[in-house]
This record gives sequence, structure tokens and C-alpha cells, in this order.
Amino acid sequence: MASADGSKLWGGRFVGDTDPIMEKFNASIAYDKRMWDADIRGSKAYAKALEKAKLVTAEEKDNILHGMDQIHDEWAKGVFEVKPGDEDIHTANERRLKELIGEPAGKLHTGRSRNDQVVTDMRLWLRDAISILKGNALQLITTMVERAAVEIDVLFPGYTHMQRAQPIRWSHWILSHAVALSRDVEQLQEINRRVNVLPLGSGAIAGTPFNIDREMLRQELAFDDISINSMDATGQRDFIAEFLFWASLCLTHLSKMAEDLMLYSTKEFSFLTLSDAYSTGSSLMPQKKNADSLELIRSKAGRVFGRCAGFLMTLKGLPSTYNKDLQEDKEAMFDCFDTVHAVLQVTTGVVSTLKVRDVKLLTLFCPPTPSFPLHPPLAPPSSPLFSSDVSAVWDYSSSVEQYSAPGGTAKSSVAAQVEHMRTWLKKQL
Amino acid sequence: MASADGSKLWGGRFVGDTDPIMEKFNASIAYDKRMWDADIRGSKAYAKALEKAKLVTAEEKDNILHGMDQIHDEWAKGVFEVKPGDEDIHTANERRLKELIGEPAGKLHTGRSRNDQVVTDMRLWLRDAISILKGNALQLITTMVERAAVEIDVLFPGYTHMQRAQPIRWSHWILSHAVALSRDVEQLQEINRRVNVLPLGSGAIAGTPFNIDREMLRQELAFDDISINSMDATGQRDFIAEFLFWASLCLTHLSKMAEDLMLYSTKEFSFLTLSDAYSTGSSLMPQKKNADSLELIRSKAGRVFGRCAGFLMTLKGLPSTYNKDLQEDKEAMFDCFDTVHAVLQVTTGVVSTLKVRDVKLLTLFCPPTPSFPLHPPLAPPSSPLFSSDVSAVWDYSSSVEQYSAPGGTAKSSVAAQVEHMRTWLKKQL
Amino acid sequence: MASADGSKLWGGRFVGDTDPIMEKFNASIAYDKRMWDADIRGSKAYAKALEKAKLVTAEEKDNILHGMDQIHDEWAKGVFEVKPGDEDIHTANERRLKELIGEPAGKLHTGRSRNDQVVTDMRLWLRDAISILKGNALQLITTMVERAAVEIDVLFPGYTHMQRAQPIRWSHWILSHAVALSRDVEQLQEINRRVNVLPLGSGAIAGTPFNIDREMLRQELAFDDISINSMDATGQRDFIAEFLFWASLCLTHLSKMAEDLMLYSTKEFSFLTLSDAYSTGSSLMPQKKNADSLELIRSKAGRVFGRCAGFLMTLKGLPSTYNKDLQEDKEAMFDCFDTVHAVLQVTTGVVSTLKVRDVKLLTLFCPPTPSFPLHPPLAPPSSPLFSSDVSAVWDYSSSVEQYSAPGGTAKSSVAAQVEHMRTWLKKQL
Amino acid sequence: MASADGSKLWGGRFVGDTDPIMEKFNASIAYDKRMWDADIRGSKAYAKALEKAKLVTAEEKDNILHGMDQIHDEWAKGVFEVKPGDEDIHTANERRLKELIGEPAGKLHTGRSRNDQVVTDMRLWLRDAISILKGNALQLITTMVERAAVEIDVLFPGYTHMQRAQPIRWSHWILSHAVALSRDVEQLQEINRRVNVLPLGSGAIAGTPFNIDREMLRQELAFDDISINSMDATGQRDFIAEFLFWASLCLTHLSKMAEDLMLYSTKEFSFLTLSDAYSTGSSLMPQKKNADSLELIRSKAGRVFGRCAGFLMTLKGLPSTYNKDLQEDKEAMFDCFDTVHAVLQVTTGVVSTLKVRDVKLLTLFCPPTPSFPLHPPLAPPSSPLFSSDVSAVWDYSSSVEQYSAPGGTAKSSVAAQVEHMRTWLKKQL
Repeated sequence: MASADGSKLWGGRFVGDTDPIMEKFNASIAYDKRMWDADIRGSKAYAKALEKAKLVTAEEKDNILHGMDQIHDEWAKGVFEVKPGDEDIHTANERRLKELIGEPAGKLHTGRSRNDQVVTDMRLWLRDAISILKGNALQLITTMVERAAVEIDVLFPGYTHMQRAQPIRWSHWILSHAVALSRDVEQLQEINRRVNVLPLGSGAIAGTPFNIDREMLRQELAFDDISINSMDATGQRDFIAEFLFWASLCLTHLSKMAEDLMLYSTKEFSFLTLSDAYSTGSSLMPQKKNADSLELIRSKAGRVFGRCAGFLMTLKGLPSTYNKDLQEDKEAMFDCFDTVHAVLQVTTGVVSTLKVRDVKLLTLFCPPTPSFPLHPPLAPPSSPLFSSDVSAVWDYSSSVEQYSAPGGTAKSSVAAQVEHMRTWLKKQL
Repeated sequence: MASADGSKLWGGRFVGDTDPIMEKFNASIAYDKRMWDADIRGSKAYAKALEKAKLVTAEEKDNILHGMDQIHDEWAKGVFEVKPGDEDIHTANERRLKELIGEPAGKLHTGRSRNDQVVTDMRLWLRDAISILKGNALQLITTMVERAAVEIDVLFPGYTHMQRAQPIRWSHWILSHAVALSRDVEQLQEINRRVNVLPLGSGAIAGTPFNIDREMLRQELAFDDISINSMDATGQRDFIAEFLFWASLCLTHLSKMAEDLMLYSTKEFSFLTLSDAYSTGSSLMPQKKNADSLELIRSKAGRVFGRCAGFLMTLKGLPSTYNKDLQEDKEAMFDCFDTVHAVLQVTTGVVSTLKVRDVKLLTLFCPPTPSFPLHPPLAPPSSPLFSSDVSAVWDYSSSVEQYSAPGGTAKSSVAAQVEHMRTWLKKQL
Repeated sequence: MASADGSKLWGGRFVGDTDPIMEKFNASIAYDKRMWDADIRGSKAYAKALEKAKLVTAEEKDNILHGMDQIHDEWAKGVFEVKPGDEDIHTANERRLKELIGEPAGKLHTGRSRNDQVVTDMRLWLRDAISILKGNALQLITTMVERAAVEIDVLFPGYTHMQRAQPIRWSHWILSHAVALSRDVEQLQEINRRVNVLPLGSGAIAGTPFNIDREMLRQELAFDDISINSMDATGQRDFIAEFLFWASLCLTHLSKMAEDLMLYSTKEFSFLTLSDAYSTGSSLMPQKKNADSLELIRSKAGRVFGRCAGFLMTLKGLPSTYNKDLQEDKEAMFDCFDTVHAVLQVTTGVVSTLKVRDVKLLTLFCPPTPSFPLHPPLAPPSSPLFSSDVSAVWDYSSSVEQYSAPGGTAKSSVAAQVEHMRTWLKKQL
Repeated sequence: MASADGSKLWGGRFVGDTDPIMEKFNASIAYDKRMWDADIRGSKAYAKALEKAKLVTAEEKDNILHGMDQIHDEWAKGVFEVKPGDEDIHTANERRLKELIGEPAGKLHTGRSRNDQVVTDMRLWLRDAISILKGNALQLITTMVERAAVEIDVLFPGYTHMQRAQPIRWSHWILSHAVALSRDVEQLQEINRRVNVLPLGSGAIAGTPFNIDREMLRQELAFDDISINSMDATGQRDFIAEFLFWASLCLTHLSKMAEDLMLYSTKEFSFLTLSDAYSTGSSLMPQKKNADSLELIRSKAGRVFGRCAGFLMTLKGLPSTYNKDLQEDKEAMFDCFDTVHAVLQVTTGVVSTLKVRDVKLLTLFCPPTPSFPLHPPLAPPSSPLFSSDVSAVWDYSSSVEQYSAPGGTAKSSVAAQVEHMRTWLKKQL
């Protein structure tokens, strides 16, 4: 019973010392090699800390740094060769370092574990990624704000419940989406504060036993802070979960804008025309111009939220510290970055090149069969304010001008929003 | 074809002017009545703004305020009577106000729409809820930190991959979870900054057409800021989505702690004993003591994340401004508040009353068949540090003391963490 | 250290033998009382099995059955009184039985555990719920099919990518949604096969030690089968997970139909008019008619999927057999039932009462500025088929008639679909 | 205003006729090339249907078939060259066909649209994938059942709430998981019935206008049925959603088994030992043997459910027929297949090679300090059954034998389960 060769009794998969499917299942090099640069930066800093702690000599440190620079070059030139056995980027770089400089390579592991190394690499990588996404978002917001400034005089029907509600300025609509994106940028910066914390020096679980100067590591790698508790530092991936949710909420915003734009560019609405670069025609149905770009933008909210949902489910109920389950973190992080990175740029392209068909829009506002109500919206039944000049209600321009409180659609109010956003944008640089 | 009485031709549900199932489906009073106080506060502030804008007289305003106070009393005493037709809390309070003060009640709607009213109420309600949850979380963290301070000398096996890895301090484990919760508190405060923004004065979509002083409203209701764009203000529920995700991540943290505690309190581990108040015995299996509390805590991460997932999916692809779909926001908000509110308190009870079985723990650390390695973990092969005194490796206490860098498990290091957290806690008050 | 009164040292929540928050957190009576009837049915059957196994006398059995009937009456009349300590429906019914018949009530627990009792109740309840939902779905499908039959001559623009693509029959559109719902019905029946399996007689985990006749129980409670393995029977909730996903996919179908109908009933499309019973006007914006019903329908896909996501996350990584985490099953089940139950009925109301504005539709198809292509879609550039009669392309009616293969939009093809669905519907009864 | 060169006024991304980021964002060839074989099979069948409809000549058909065979060879040999402009597998194969046989290649598109082509390919691909997964699952179940048969005499502690509850047979535990997997297989087959339906001949939306024989296509491609409605056929991805959920539930089952095995193989439980092929040691902590395989298995439930959640969210609220959003279907499908494919095989390896430490298990059952209760569980207080031989309660073997009803843990009962499963397995072949 339960004998070594038990599987002969019940079949199953007869494996020897290793199972190739398991090994492939276990390996992460296929995707974590994207962190090659972060891994090298982390190792170089750590080599310096080892020297300071007198765990390597100055010469050994220099050899390590030099070797790491050479590995950097190989990756940068696309000539680094991943070999069998390189199960992750850390193993690959270490193996290569040993080939290049021999024995001292092994010392790089003194007092450092995979657990604190991998999470350091991820934080370095994500910090850069966040910086790129912030730039993408700011470019999009800038485009929207400046377009709102230029086209401030275009009137537009405002919708609620997908039904025409009140006339607004087209710029008011643009700004409503820009404002949502500005919250995304603020949230991204808050997350970044939690990303930008150094875990290195936490060891596998208990901390680092040698005289490793974590403050020096922090400065070397330009982190804002060092982690408080080694078990938390190596076992938590909150910053990933937060980033995945951030991506989800940001793309949910863009799915909303895309839905609006799709509606407005249907034949039936005909308010807007997308640039050819962002739509596709059909040779068989030449009357069609599909808003592929908008559909893709809309779809990606689901994709990234799926990553967030999957990762939270993976985290649920895990015991603390490092468990292999956490390996799900990286593909989710990369995919969400790539997706948001592309979506923000495509959206910027769409928004900067679409055309408003203002002739069409004007016809919506003409008597004698107005699409909008015969008396101004929100007026109290007995209000004396409107008794004087009934004809003004035909003038949508003046109707719009009534909404002059902060946040409203009057020209002064929209102009104030533009200024508010411009000031905000300046602060982000 | 398509005639008025078409349904006679194809069956279906023959409804007249109204469909009772639709009306019930549509109504939210069953749950949104929880916001009765927020609704009254918002209306009282708005009555003052109407007076300032000369849209109601001072006397009318006083009548409204007085009527609202009376309604407040009715709710507080549990005697407010919800009537048929009161489809939501706003309708109910308005209807009651009209009964109490007559005509001027109607003027309360001047320049205010359901769209800005409902979201103002939600923000007032959630602001209070966040304050309560923050208090619950701080109480839990305080308990953990002080327990860590008292029991700093208890040694404990540290696990990774659910396998014994390195000896640590029990307090180090406690603090690893406290630190995670402190991030939750910080995030909650960031969210609160986005919650605490006044949308009132945004109308249905275009803003408010009258001379409503939004800055006065802001002060009256103690918001930090006013919303920038009326379309965004009435149609966005990002603050809800953020809160739901916050609840999910916070409870994912507690699911992790619960999983650890469940393991440690199994017969096989036997490191901890739960208080009877948080476990249940079985008359049929008297040897059992089920950690019901911990299982419930673990389960709730799923529940609240489900709310988050559901709401994000509801938001996905919605056109901008108000759509009835947003009505899903309130039950999700209430349920997540109630759940986290209970879980944090129960967890505080569990953590403050469980007992560490240190006699048992000591046996884990004894020769001659140590469960831990014969040489200290993470030692470099050639390190001179350990040549002098091999017997020290048998001394787990001194082993633990090696991890003295910040964040490590040495006594000084853990004491520093305690101090760090105490300082942090003081800042939160 | 770790003393009994340790909490005095570190604060926390000072609880005695019980924590009222924990007790409330633990109790499920507030919602599981919905299963009162299923619980009584299960207990009555079990009493008969106990008699057969000679574990109760015939007289005791009769007392139990009689007592249970009386409890049934109390629930049915709404006079059953839930008392403190009735933490769930099972405890409540048992407590009441003891009040009514004394000692023999206790014997009802012989060889039965909460674990097999609760899951038996759930299966009984869900089986009935599924039957109701199937009826709701069939009513909706029938309405759609019959409407499609009556209005088969109405032409309609077909859309892809929200852009007009090809003329179709309005009935073709209706049937596309009916067909999706018919798959939902088929899936529901498959799930029901897995629901309709008796777990009773599985005990807590190991099975039942007495001579309980599970086959007799199966017949008594009209289950199709008995569970194969007691550990699986008491610890699995797959049938709940499947049901929650079923609800999600079904409502995703209806969210799609709702989205179409919302588009078609905008001012800009103006193809359809919703009945007043399913839309709301606005006193302030009298031109508006909001499709509230459709927005609610669309929103509920998110709600129920949230329940599914939450429950799957709760299940993830649980050890086998019963864990208290499973208690999340019931609220999810009830909420999804209630939601789908309401949505299906409201949708039936919407679909049976909306009007197609065929005058408007006709204008879409008129020369000289057709919205559709000048040559029929999908025609091969060199096809000889169209050389004879170019004028036919102006005739959308004949254009539509080209699509006569099975599944196409030609009249014969649509009529065949109607017949197919009628036949299918007959089989479901 | 809104001029062609508007973007000069507001910045943004200045794109010309095309935006390279958009093109990359839009292209699916990187992943959908996996369907090269399905695409070729679909096209070959369609060529035959075109000939039958006299839309191509016999010679043209032969040219197409021959060309397609050549393309097949190129893919099979790994020499097919994807060129710029090949945005998806369909375009790539068509472009290549045109290079090989010239003009007749274009005719392959007669009456066929991308919409029905792509979904036909997916169904062909998924049908094969399901067949593979069914094989993997059956292999795993077979292994478990046969192991349960061999080791039927091993006693094991049964747990509920992670606490020892009742003694069971080890085989009873194995079978509890095998039974869950057998439900997965049944569900997979139900899904397959919905996958195995031919959509080809549905055109873009309205059906196919030519005399395409869909029944012939069905036979040619070995589908069970043809789709009922062309709009549904081209726009629905229910079969994908069902498959993704299937993967989620299946891996949730395995996450449960993995959690059990992880517990049982901790130092503290020590019931089981994993094979070295499925665990990793640590050079630094030689006492450790991490159950990496089990952690990976547990983690994947989250991953695949994330795909399911993401796709459902993408589907929510889409209008009917084809929208580009549906392009999210393929990566989700491939990833879930790959993941489940690997997990099932690794689990088979784990299960067939782990060892039960029965010596250890025996010690759990010895007097004088039993871990199990002093009287048998579930015994009625006054039961006469146990009066005769109190000492029998010390005999766990006989305790286990009491549970002899179907589904119980007695030897006869477990043996019956084994036979039940063997019979079931035979039916699946």
C-alpha cells in the first residue's frame, strides 16, 4: 500500500524525478523577462550593500557591477540567451552572471531571498509603468481640455437615460470625461506612493540577518520609503491588486465615453464623424463605417477587470507570507499595463481627430418642432423668472447660459472648468 | 399590426397603466430609507440656499426647516410611516413635508433634481460610514499593536508555502497583519477625499439655472470641495466603486489572517486557542471546537468582492450622466458597510481573546530533532559569522535575534515596529 | 503572557461568553426562513425513515408529522414566532416542534446532521424555484415567438457595430433573442438534474450510521437520484454556483435585448415606443420618456454576476466538506432567484406591450437616398445573379427575401424559425 | 471649428490615414493563428458548398481545396509566413490562397462573412479542445478511482471546519473529489452539445442569400446541428462564456483538493508526502519541501475565473449581432484551455505519485488519548445500539464500518462507490 511504485497499481502519469508539464507550468521566464532591467538594477544596488556590510570585497562588488552591466547590454541588444533551467528572470540573470564572473556571483544571494528580490523587481517595474501611464493619461486630458476650449461655442443635446434632456455645450460633455480621468491620475499617484516602498532586505520571511543597510538600498534605488515588516513585505501584493482595480475603473470611464461616442456617431444620431484611422469600412456594405476603435476601447474594461477579479480570487484565503499562488501577479500586471497603455493612446487619437457635425446639431434646436421642451427645464411651475420673455425659450443659446453656477454648462462656467483643468494639469508635471 | 391591443394577439402579460411587478422592481424605499437623515440634512441646507437666492421667503424656509425637523423626529423615533407611492426616501420625505407644511414643500425642488439630490445623500451617508469603519479598523490595529508589545518574547514558527521556514516572533506575525490594515486605513482616507465633494447644484445634467450658492451649500454640509462638472457629478459613482473595492481588499487581508489563525488553531498545529465566544462546540462531536468566526471572516472577502464585481459590470459601457442602472449602487454600498463593520469588530474580538499556547510552541524548537534547519537560514556558504559558535544555532532565540535590520524579527526590530505603529495610530485620531 | 485576561493588557473588545455581534453575524434565520416549507418537508420524510429503521415508534413518527403540519400552518398563516436563539430555520422549526410534542422532537436528529439537512432543504427549495423560473422564461419566449409570427411582414434595419448593415425582418430580430432564451431554458434543466439529487443520509461527513433507507427518502421527496459520496454531498455547492452563473448568462442575454430596445426607442432611432407602464415621464422635461424598465433590466446582469463572482471567490481554496463559509450560499441563491423572477416578468410585459413604428421604418427604405447600399450586401462582384434586374435592389422586401437559407431573414425562413420554436415550446410543457 | 486640421488646435496624437497603435490594438493574428487548422477545414467545406450552389466551378473548387491543403502543410511544418496586413488568421489564409491560386480565392468569400467564419472556426477549435480536456479529466478520475480501490483499507481522519470530525477511509476522501470531477465531465459534454452547432451560412447578420446548402456544410464539418437564427448565430458567444465558467468551477474543485493536500502534507499533519517531481526543496532551508504544484493548482481557479468575469463584463449591455468587443473571446478561450489542460495533467501526476503515511495515521487512532470522541458521533443519546459493546468505540475500524448506507465510509459503501465510478467511466469512452 502506498508503495513507491504505487502508481503502477492505479495508473496515472508515470513521472520520474521531474514532470516536464510541471516544469513548464512552474516557469515564469516567458513573461517575467520583461523585468530584466529592474532585476539588474536591484542586484547592482544589493551588491553595493553587500560591500558596505563587508560580505563582498570592493573587487567582488566591481566584478558584479561590471557583469551586470554586460548582461544589461545583452538584453538591451536582444542577444541575451535564455537557457533551459532559467525558470525565471532572476535565475537567468544569476546564471549568466556566474558564466561571466564566476564564483562571486553566488554571493549576490547572501541575505537576499527570491521572495524579497522578486517583489523589489516588480515595484521597480511598476513604478516606471505608472509613470508612463500617467503621461498617457495627461496627454489625453490635455487634448480634451484644449479641444473643449476651442469648441466652447458648439451646442449639443444633453442626454440622460439615453433620451434628450437639456441643451448643453459640447465642451461640457468633453470636460465631464476629462474630470473623471483626472481622478484616475490622482488615484494612480496615491497607488504609486504605496508601490514606491522598498521591500529588499526582508529576506524570505524573517528579515535580513546581516548588516544590510536598507536605507542605503532605498536611496540607491530611489524608493520613498522602506517596508515596515518583512512578512508583510514579501507576502503582500496589495499594490498589484490596487493597480489592477485602478486599470479597471479607468477603463470603465473610457467605456462610458466610448459608448457615448458610438451613439453619437451612428447614422441616426449623426453628431460626430470618426477619423478613418479609427474606423473601418466594408467593401460589401460601403455605407458602413464601423467604429472599431470605440468598440475595442469599450471591451477592454471587461478584460482588465477580469484580471483584477482573478487576482483577488487568487489572493482570497491564502495564508500569509509567500505562496506560489502569488505568481499570478505578473501576467495580470503586464496585461493591464499594456492594455491601458494602448487604450489611452488610441483614445487620444480618436478624440483629437473626430469631427463634430455642428450643422446637424443646429437643426436639433430649430422651431417650430423643437425636440426640447417648450419651457426651460427645472423651472418651478410658478416661478416669476420666466414670465417676461417667453421667446427666450426658443433661444437655446440663452437657455444654456442660465446654467452659470460652478460646474454648469453656461459659457462662463465651462470656461472656468477649462481653467481649473489647465491649472490642475500644470501641477501634474 | 403593432396595434395598441397587440398583446391580445401574442399573449404576454396584460398590464394596464402600471405593472405592479415593475413598480416593485423600480422602488428603492425598502433599502434607501437608511439615508433618511442624510436626505433631511441635504434638504435643509438646500432650503437655506433657496432663501439666499430669493426663491423662497424667509418664512417659507423656516417652515421647511421646521417640517424637516419634525420628519427627522419621526424617523428617529421609528414612527415615520412609509406610504404607497413613496418609491424612494426622497419622495417619502417630500410627501411628508407637503402633508406637514403644504405648498412651500414643492419649492424645495426648484433647481434641484433627483439626480443631484440622490448623489448628495449618498455622499453624506458614506462619509459617516467611512468614519465609523475607520474607527473600527483603528481599534483592531491598536489591539494588535498592543498585544504585539505585550507578547514580544513569544517565539513562533514562521511559515512560507504552509511549511515551517524560520523561527520568528509571534508579535512579528501580528504586526505583519496590522501593517496591512494600516494601508487600508490610509486608502480609506484617500477615498474619503473623493467622497467628500458636494454635487448639489448640478441639477439633472446641465447645472443649476438659478442663483444657487454652491459654496454656501458646501459649508453648510461640511464638504471639502464642490464638484467640477455637473454631468460628471450626477452620473459618476466612482466613489462607490472605490469603496466597494476597498472593502474587498480589506477583507482579503482579513481572510489571510483568518486562514493563518485557522491553521494555527487546528489540533495538528495547536499553537492557539480561540475564545469560546468565537467558536462553537458540537454536542455530537465534543472533541471539536469549530472556528466559526474565522470561517465567516474568511468568507466575507468573496461576498464584498462580489458586490464590487457586480457594480463594475453594471457600470461598464453605460452612457454618461444618470441612467437607472446606477440604482444598483445603494444596496452594494449598504451591504459592504454592514459586512466590513461586523467583520472588523468580530476580528477585534477574536484577536483580543485568543490564547497563544507557548508551552506547545517551545517544543517545536527543541533538539535533538529540530524542525528547523541545522544551520541558520540564509547564511552564505563561506560566511565567517558562524564559525565561532555552532551551538548558537540551537538557540532559536539568538537565531531570531540575527534579523535585526528594519522590518526584521529581532526583538529590537519588532519593538521598533510597535513604536512605528503607535506613532502612526496617534496621527489618525 | 497570553493570560486569560490578556485583553486587559491590550484592549480590544471585552466580550464574555458570547459576543452579540458575533451571534448576529453567525445567524442566518433572517433569510433562511424562506426555506421553512422545504425544511418541514425534509423533516417529515426523515421521520418516516426513522420509523422504518425502528429508531422512532409509529406513534412518535405520527406525533412528529402532526407537529410539523402544525408548524407548517403557522408559517403559512404568518404567525410563526421566531425566538431569540433561533439562529437558523432548522433550529427554529426544531425548537417549535419540541414545544409542541416534547421529547420525540429530539429524535428527529438521530443520524441526521445540520450538514445534510441544510443542503437537502436548499435543493428542495431551488428545485421549486427553477420550476418557477422555467415557467417565466417560457412565457416570455412564447410571447416573443407569437409576436414574431404576427408581425412577420414588418421590415427593420439590421445593425452590426451599432451601424445599419442589412434590412431584416423585425421578427428575425425578436427570434434572435428568443433563441438565446431557449438555450437558457435548456441549461436550466440540465442544472436541475444536478439539483434534484438527494443528499439526506450523508450525516456530517462520513455517512449515516443507522439503517436509514436513503432510497425511501429519495422517493418520499421525489428526487431523481441519491448522492454518491457523503463528503461531497455535504460539502459541495456546485449546484448553487451553476445556478448563479445561469442567472448571470440569462440576464446578460436580456441586457443585450434591453440595450437594443433602448437604442431603438431613442428619439433619434424612433423605431419603437414603450408602453407607459414601462417608462416614466418627467414633469420638468415633458418631452422625455425614460425607458426605466430597460435600464433596470440591463443593470441586473451585473447584480447577479456579482453574486456568482462573490460565491466562486468564497469557494476558492476552501478545504473539503462543510465549512461555515458555505453559509454565503443562501442569500446569493435567493437574490438571484428574486432578480431573475422579476426581470423575466417585466421583460415579458415590455415585449408584449411595446409598439413598432412601422411608418417610421418605411422611410428608412425609400429612394432616392437610401440608407442601405446600392447593391445588395454580400453579393460577389461578378455574380451573374443580379444582372437581370437592377431595380430589384431598390426593393428591400425582395432584398430580404434573398436570405432564404435556414436561419435567414426571408419570410419562409423566419416562418420556419417560428415553427421550430413552437415545437420546442410544446416539448417543454 | 471642428475643422479637418482641428487637432493642430488642441494637440493630441497626430495620425494620418492609419494609427500604428490602433492597428496593433486591432490585430488578432498573434493569438488567433492557433485556429489555422479550423479555419482551413471551414474554408474547404465552404468551397464544396459553393460548388454545389454553382457559385464556383468544379475546377475552381479543386484549386481552392488544393491550395488550402498546401497552406495546411505550411502551418503544420511551421513555415507559414505571417505578413504585414495579415490582421487575423482568416486574412492570412486568404491572402496566402490568393498567392497560390490567384483569382478564385476571392470567390471563397461569396455569401460568407467574417462574422460567420470566425465563429465557425472557434466552434471547430473548441470542440477539439473539449475533447482533449475530457480525456485529461477522465485520466485523472480513473487514477483516483483505481487508487481508491487499492487503498481502501487505509483509515483517515475526516475533517469539517478544518477540525477532526470522524474517522473515514482515505478512499472515501479520494472519491469525494472524483465524484465532483465526474460532474465536471458531464457538464462539459452538455456544453459541447451547444458548441457543436454550425453557424456557417449565417452571413454577416441576415443569413446567406445564395443557395448555400447548410445541411451539407453541417455534415461536412461533422456538426450535430445547424444554428436557428443568423443574428443569434453570428453575435452570440454563450458557448465561450459557458466554457469559461466550466473551467472556473472545475478548477475551483481542484483548488479544494489542493488545499486539502497542502494541509495534509504540512509538517504538522504529516499524513501525506508529495513526490519530488511536484515539490521543491530549498538549499537554504533543507528541512522544507514546498508543495509548489499544489499552490499553482490552487491559484489557477482565480486565473480562469478572472477570464470568465472579464468576458461576462465585456458582454454585458452589448447590442446584438457582431460588435468588435467580442474579439475578447479568443484569448480567454485559449488561456482557459491551456490552463485547465496543464492543471489536470499536473494533478494527475500529483495524485498518482503522492504517498500516504499510514504509520502516522495509525497513531491518531490509538488510546488512551484519542483525538476522536469517546462515543461514536451522531449517536442518539438513548440509542440502544451501543449499549452492548462500549469497547468497540475504541476500534475505529468498526466505527467506520457503521456508515454503511449508500455514500457512507464503510468498506462496502466505498467499494460500491468505486464500482459506480468504474461503470460511469466506461460509459464515457
